[in-house]
Amino acid sequence: MDRPFDIITIGHAIVDVLAPSSDDLPGAYGMEKGTMTLIDEERATELYQVLGPAIESSGGSAANTAAGIAALGGSVGFIGKVRDDKLGEVFTHDIRASGVAFDVPAATSGPGTGLCLIMVSPDAQRTMATYLGAGAFLYPDDIDANLCIEAKIVYIEGYMCGLHETEWSVSKAAAACHLKGGRFALSLSDPYWVDLKAASLGALLDNVDILFGNEEEVTAMTGSELDLAMSELAHRCELVVVTRGAKGSLVVANNQVIEVPAHPVDTVVDTTGAGDLFAAGFLYGLTHDYEPADCAELGSLAAAEVIGHLGARPQTSLSKLAAEAGLLR
Amino acid sequence: MDRPFDIITIGHAIVDVLAPSSDDLPGAYGMEKGTMTLIDEERATELYQVLGPAIESSGGSAANTAAGIAALGGSVGFIGKVRDDKLGEVFTHDIRASGVAFDVPAATSGPGTGLCLIMVSPDAQRTMATYLGAGAFLYPDDIDANLCIEAKIVYIEGYMCGLHETEWSVSKAAAACHLKGGRFALSLSDPYWVDLKAASLGALLDNVDILFGNEEEVTAMTGSELDLAMSELAHRCELVVVTRGAKGSLVVANNQVIEVPAHPVDTVVDTTGAGDLFAAGFLYGLTHDYEPADCAELGSLAAAEVIGHLGARPQTSLSKLAAEAGLLR
Repeated sequence: MDRPFDIITIGHAIVDVLAPSSDDLPGAYGMEKGTMTLIDEERATELYQVLGPAIESSGGSAANTAAGIAALGGSVGFIGKVRDDKLGEVFTHDIRASGVAFDVPAATSGPGTGLCLIMVSPDAQRTMATYLGAGAFLYPDDIDANLCIEAKIVYIEGYMCGLHETEWSVSKAAAACHLKGGRFALSLSDPYWVDLKAASLGALLDNVDILFGNEEEVTAMTGSELDLAMSELAHRCELVVVTRGAKGSLVVANNQVIEVPAHPVDTVVDTTGAGDLFAAGFLYGLTHDYEPADCAELGSLAAAEVIGHLGARPQTSLSKLAAEAGLLR
Repeated sequence: MDRPFDIITIGHAIVDVLAPSSDDLPGAYGMEKGTMTLIDEERATELYQVLGPAIESSGGSAANTAAGIAALGGSVGFIGKVRDDKLGEVFTHDIRASGVAFDVPAATSGPGTGLCLIMVSPDAQRTMATYLGAGAFLYPDDIDANLCIEAKIVYIEGYMCGLHETEWSVSKAAAACHLKGGRFALSLSDPYWVDLKAASLGALLDNVDILFGNEEEVTAMTGSELDLAMSELAHRCELVVVTRGAKGSLVVANNQVIEVPAHPVDTVVDTTGAGDLFAAGFLYGLTHDYEPADCAELGSLAAAEVIGHLGARPQTSLSKLAAEAGLLR
């Protein structure tokens, strides 16, 4: 794959453990349905015991986005940290096999590769319990500044913000990408995370050109109702993109709000990765000079594919789907 | 779970690595589409490199059958061998979480837990490259004779036959289950395997009460056309069950051939596990005094569920599906 890349995504390197679950299980373990909770290794072991039969699938928010961009035919690299263990091998294999450049060296000591226990309830909502493991230790030395300088867009998941170990890595990436006029993009990731790390995320916002979030996240970020929240955020970021599940998405660009409907879906099996894949389509569009509404339409298409099956990465060729829908140029 | 169990299944403990693949990939690596090839660890590493992004899911033919029986509400235990490593933990978690009793101690030395690289081609056919690892070392001491003596049915996958290390384990299980009038069931597993291990499988047949195979397997086993093959096998086994994909199944019992149509399926995603789940439904029916035709119908229902998604174990409650279809008593 030729360097440099159009897009660099940065986030936690995670292997997902997906298990169908009852509606009650998350609550019984003190988790709120639809959110993410950080857990330690001991808690991960305990929770795994009570989970139903699972499938394992590479995940991580920004890594899913990178896989989506590659599945659309985009040029993309991923920056994140695994350990040199079995799960690290799985993560590395999958992201490279999906066409994403990934060459951050695996840690040779310390905690194992991160994993995320995902409880998928009957209504296809997912509740995540994440053990970050090695993923939390992405130091500034792991950020290849040249990749960020040369990229058109550097995209980071909100989960990287507010962690002591990764704070400087985030700043380094943002500074590097602005050096030659690249744009810095952030996903708010999770309403729970926004509440927990509001200060760090808020401080970063002035460096953010493109902001992604769902309704709950942007209202949590600002403490305002949706309309006002979008307006506030649009004062700080050039593009604000709000996803709303089946209701589609809203894009605020040049003082205009554009409403884009969701792509139709037969059966929603598992919403894991919906936001990540929406961002993938949107970013692919931006780096190919699409208008914002077209970017959102491509995002909706990519999200629709991933919620039709278990797992947060595309299982079909998104570029073929997009071509069939007349969304590729 | 109360001992004893209605059904004991015996087979290789395997974690599946499922990856969508082109039609050409199996051929390029010397494998025939739709069959299983045994590979060593080095070859597994080489093949994994060229596979696309994958998902990992517990598998193994007889283990899938056990998971299917449990998903129907049946009483079942599994006998097979893992190593005390990460994949072994995954296998153990998944089979227990699906409601199957499993307590063969993990090997603490020797090869790692077995895995099966499964290439799923666009027509939903699967080609399997299996590294048996620890699974191949199931010694007679690992077979709990009491479980086999007390079971109504002991079911074994053909893949256990013809391996030096497991030959005596198979004999021990067959002898034990006949002690108190239990029935011994065998799945032929794979036409490639039947060709390779015809002598061992043939020698076992006189101890087999219930035989499962698809069209290719039963004709490979006998060297005869389907009609004659069924008749020959029915001379040696009380029940002969032949699966035929979309064409349904044939059951030979009491000198009668019964034809049962396949259960309708919306979209076939991945045929991995279809035969295993058919056997699950059939065996559940037998241990609940169903007529052979009703056993086959339940088998078809279970097979239909598993081919509708990636992975060889049920992802929904089979007992609920069966109740809705009026097939549970």
